[in-house]
Amino acid sequence: MATYVLAHDAWHTGKELEPTASSIRAAGHRVHTPTIAGNRPGDPKTVGLEDAIKSIVDYLTENKLEDVILLGHGYGGMIVTGVADRVPERVRRLVYWNAFVPNNGQSINDMAPYIALFGPTLAQRDDGSIMLPFPTWREEFINDADLETAQKAYGVLNSHPEKTFVDKISIRNNPAGMQLGKSYINCTDDTALPDRQPWHPRFSQRLGQFRLVQTPGSHELCFSNPKRLAQAIMDAGRD
Amino acid sequence: MATYVLAHDAWHTGKELEPTASSIRAAGHRVHTPTIAGNRPGDPKTVGLEDAIKSIVDYLTENKLEDVILLGHGYGGMIVTGVADRVPERVRRLVYWNAFVPNNGQSINDMAPYIALFGPTLAQRDDGSIMLPFPTWREEFINDADLETAQKAYGVLNSHPEKTFVDKISIRNNPAGMQLGKSYINCTDDTALPDRQPWHPRFSQRLGQFRLVQTPGSHELCFSNPKRLAQAIMDAGRD
Amino acid sequence: MATYVLAHDAWHTGKELEPTASSIRAAGHRVHTPTIAGNRPGDPKTVGLEDAIKSIVDYLTENKLEDVILLGHGYGGMIVTGVADRVPERVRRLVYWNAFVPNNGQSINDMAPYIALFGPTLAQRDDGSIMLPFPTWREEFINDADLETAQKAYGVLNSHPEKTFVDKISIRNNPAGMQLGKSYINCTDDTALPDRQPWHPRFSQRLGQFRLVQTPGSHELCFSNPKRLAQAIMDAGRD
Repeated sequence: MATYVLAHDAWHTGKELEPTASSIRAAGHRVHTPTIAGNRPGDPKTVGLEDAIKSIVDYLTENKLEDVILLGHGYGGMIVTGVADRVPERVRRLVYWNAFVPNNGQSINDMAPYIALFGPTLAQRDDGSIMLPFPTWREEFINDADLETAQKAYGVLNSHPEKTFVDKISIRNNPAGMQLGKSYINCTDDTALPDRQPWHPRFSQRLGQFRLVQTPGSHELCFSNPKRLAQAIMDAGRD
Repeated sequence: MATYVLAHDAWHTGKELEPTASSIRAAGHRVHTPTIAGNRPGDPKTVGLEDAIKSIVDYLTENKLEDVILLGHGYGGMIVTGVADRVPERVRRLVYWNAFVPNNGQSINDMAPYIALFGPTLAQRDDGSIMLPFPTWREEFINDADLETAQKAYGVLNSHPEKTFVDKISIRNNPAGMQLGKSYINCTDDTALPDRQPWHPRFSQRLGQFRLVQTPGSHELCFSNPKRLAQAIMDAGRD
Repeated sequence: MATYVLAHDAWHTGKELEPTASSIRAAGHRVHTPTIAGNRPGDPKTVGLEDAIKSIVDYLTENKLEDVILLGHGYGGMIVTGVADRVPERVRRLVYWNAFVPNNGQSINDMAPYIALFGPTLAQRDDGSIMLPFPTWREEFINDADLETAQKAYGVLNSHPEKTFVDKISIRNNPAGMQLGKSYINCTDDTALPDRQPWHPRFSQRLGQFRLVQTPGSHELCFSNPKRLAQAIMDAGRD
């Protein structure tokens, strides 16, 4: 029995990973799906990357979690990289699922200039947050689901604190130098990043030695096929 | 219930898409499989690209088809791009299946110099048509089928009017600028184009915002697994 | 009924291909799984590439095998290329499974500088052999299996004669010029070679006209899913 902690993507909360967590629990494991600071209901949208990372470090500490298989999705890759830097003694393996793998000093904006990528359609709000427009979500993020699933999923998203995309991460070792098990899950139909700047191998190759797990599916397999995602996570997380 | 119009590849007729159409109809949709001018029994092989496009424009008009999900396969990508330019008001979504996506002024020969690609083995005939040699068909087009299926399928092909490969398309807007839903189906084992000039992302990225649907299979999935192709088409065609 | 001869990878013997062979036999074919010189129990680890090739040429000759579908895995690609050069009259089709495809005068070290790739973790032994370290095996070779399968499989490996990696192959025609059927099986999750130097299309495109067969799986699908591998081999091997 292993302990999984799943760190969600931008615009999500931990709740959206619950169907996936259920499938992993059914196989006998413990699974936690905390929500990162900035995405919790009522959180100020001025939260930055350091606070976001700290919220998951605190979650591990307060819950006395050890030997954790720590997964990050998309933006969650920034978070788990930071957590593994702060409390490496609590982490057994890092799993990136179509996630950013930053080196020290990099921001999401450095790796994926989101204004240029999503351009004029990205809604910037007065409270410091940004929101994906629905057409981008439907066509490029959740391309493998039917319209009803895409709409329902969009309805539960929350606008995301932009500061977490601009802040540069501060870590002592780059991921390649971290002495931990590392895996990269690549959903092969993910078009959230453009094909000339793909998740894999662009980010996976920053891990040094790592285990590749691939599965059909979009960036949002947690909505379109949580069972298949759960299997990929267990294949990536096992020793 | 949606209305699908499937535009076949070079060397094919609409009839070869009937098993795929049946599966889509079984899911409750209307499906049309017209044959493009130049590939109909008895058509002169001197037909050019403009006449080929016009034949499908006429088909939509004569059958009063509206809100059409218009799919093109291979060469059929030239046709549906032209049709969407001529009668955009009849098209709901363009779906390209391992298909050419031309910008204004381009020919198939510009995008895939077929003499160089298929070389001395390509049979050029006196009537203005060209024919794929069987070994190319068997190894590079229908690599996922058994020999009997490959032979039977080859037996129903017709020699293709070369002029449609050389004529440059004339469209008012390039596909990226067309205000329509757009999808690209990529059969991941398609080797009809060489790997250094692949269908996806080389042509798909010309669409601007589009939905990617991938499935295992060769360029000729309509013969090797029409049910799987039908599912991919419905995943690509839905709103 | 066809005749298959399966040439294993470095560190393996023919015995590890027996579960795969059983599945192919169950479909009605004859399958041979000889062990290449240098990997047989008791073989000196000073064996070079020429002797390794010769051992399979001898196997075909002694067993009077003709019309052979000859498969090579990884390093086995060197062997089958050499065998097809020596006794082309016995070979019906060459099948490469995530395998090296050498041109005349090339060694494995030329195509994959293994010291640089596996670096300080590669164990070089006094008897002239080298051995993969377990973490490389588990994470990069057999990433799709559970730990128990990975450990059991590692336990049956034998240390490999380094000379076969350094010797340059001598062939009259490069594979593209060989007048034989050719197929390439690509396991899409294979990370034994780094992503910037992948098996496919880097080596497959050296074959000239070839048939591509792809399947999910790691470099060691013979352990993780021999049935699926058997199906891929039959899809690649049929006429």
